[in-house]
Amino acid sequence: MRILVIGSGRVGSAAIAKLSEGNEVIVASRSTDPPVDVTNAESIAALFAQIGDVDAVVATIGKVPFKPLTDFAGDDFVAAFNGKVLPQLEIVRLGTPFVRDGGSFTLTTGVLGRAPVAEGAAASMANGAVDAFVMAAATELPRGIRINAVSPTVLESATHQHAAFPGHIPASDESVGMAYLRSVAGVETGKVFPV
Amino acid sequence: MRILVIGSGRVGSAAIAKLSEGNEVIVASRSTDPPVDVTNAESIAALFAQIGDVDAVVATIGKVPFKPLTDFAGDDFVAAFNGKVLPQLEIVRLGTPFVRDGGSFTLTTGVLGRAPVAEGAAASMANGAVDAFVMAAATELPRGIRINAVSPTVLESATHQHAAFPGHIPASDESVGMAYLRSVAGVETGKVFPV
Repeated sequence: MRILVIGSGRVGSAAIAKLSEGNEVIVASRSTDPPVDVTNAESIAALFAQIGDVDAVVATIGKVPFKPLTDFAGDDFVAAFNGKVLPQLEIVRLGTPFVRDGGSFTLTTGVLGRAPVAEGAAASMANGAVDAFVMAAATELPRGIRINAVSPTVLESATHQHAAFPGHIPASDESVGMAYLRSVAGVETGKVFPV
Repeated sequence: MRILVIGSGRVGSAAIAKLSEGNEVIVASRSTDPPVDVTNAESIAALFAQIGDVDAVVATIGKVPFKPLTDFAGDDFVAAFNGKVLPQLEIVRLGTPFVRDGGSFTLTTGVLGRAPVAEGAAASMANGAVDAFVMAAATELPRGIRINAVSPTVLESATHQHAAFPGHIPASDESVGMAYLRSVAGVETGKVFPV
């Protein structure tokens, strides 16, 4: 399969490592060639035009502000939407013509969509938005294209984040990568895969 | 109790009818005095300043575009966020200082957050965002303030919408009103009440 992975952070790297086993994986981020700015629709469209047809698109992006609820400004909610929700929806909207029949999208949400941690209300909002979108979009994508979300908890390797997730059992890079593989190479659609 | 209900559409009217039994209910919409434009933070802030302290705030607003997924433009996703998600988050953010100790917020989502219908992907996204926000915000609101969401299916009285929800058993105004009463007068927090 030819797979475009957009985003190469910690979660993206776990996805790339697993998906690279036997597939052609193209990675796009702000610093790749071609680069992509996922907050800019024209940049997303230009990326797809340059890469051409693929069997799967994997988005592993998501930047949201963390702060106590009572410290939030209105701009923070907008930043969460613009940082994690809209870019992934735009990747689906603009990428659909470039996904081959029977191909797939895999988006990335996170445990905060189903369980709260301190200062994470905007992240919960963003994850809930994408999880629900995936459920609905699966029923409308054309040509047998599937769509799922991988929803990881804190990663074992993100040790600096462990204190913010007390009692949450961290996920290994391997288990996160496996969830992306399940979405890309399996038959399921409209699902959220918690890891 | 003194209850501020923002929004007076079909769902809002069901909430108002039930909550008015034994409570002081103040209704605010674009056409009330004082009016409120929920897409404008200054207008929301001015409303709270004018109304003063309340025991409960109920938001029953939500305007989202419906169209086939492949017809969506990027602006439609933003319109869904700005029409249903951000106004409700802003009502919580700006209204918290005006809610009395142990008071509550009740937001409004909808069945599309948990089940898709045709052309409803943006609505699903918006509902999922608010449902997850409520779960998280409940853990951080100060002074014992609670927060829940009422998530109604299509209303019996909205006969023009029934065809868009095939096989969904419509909810009565009474049952929708009861869910708002459960949130406002009960003890639960961080919950989504499907109706």
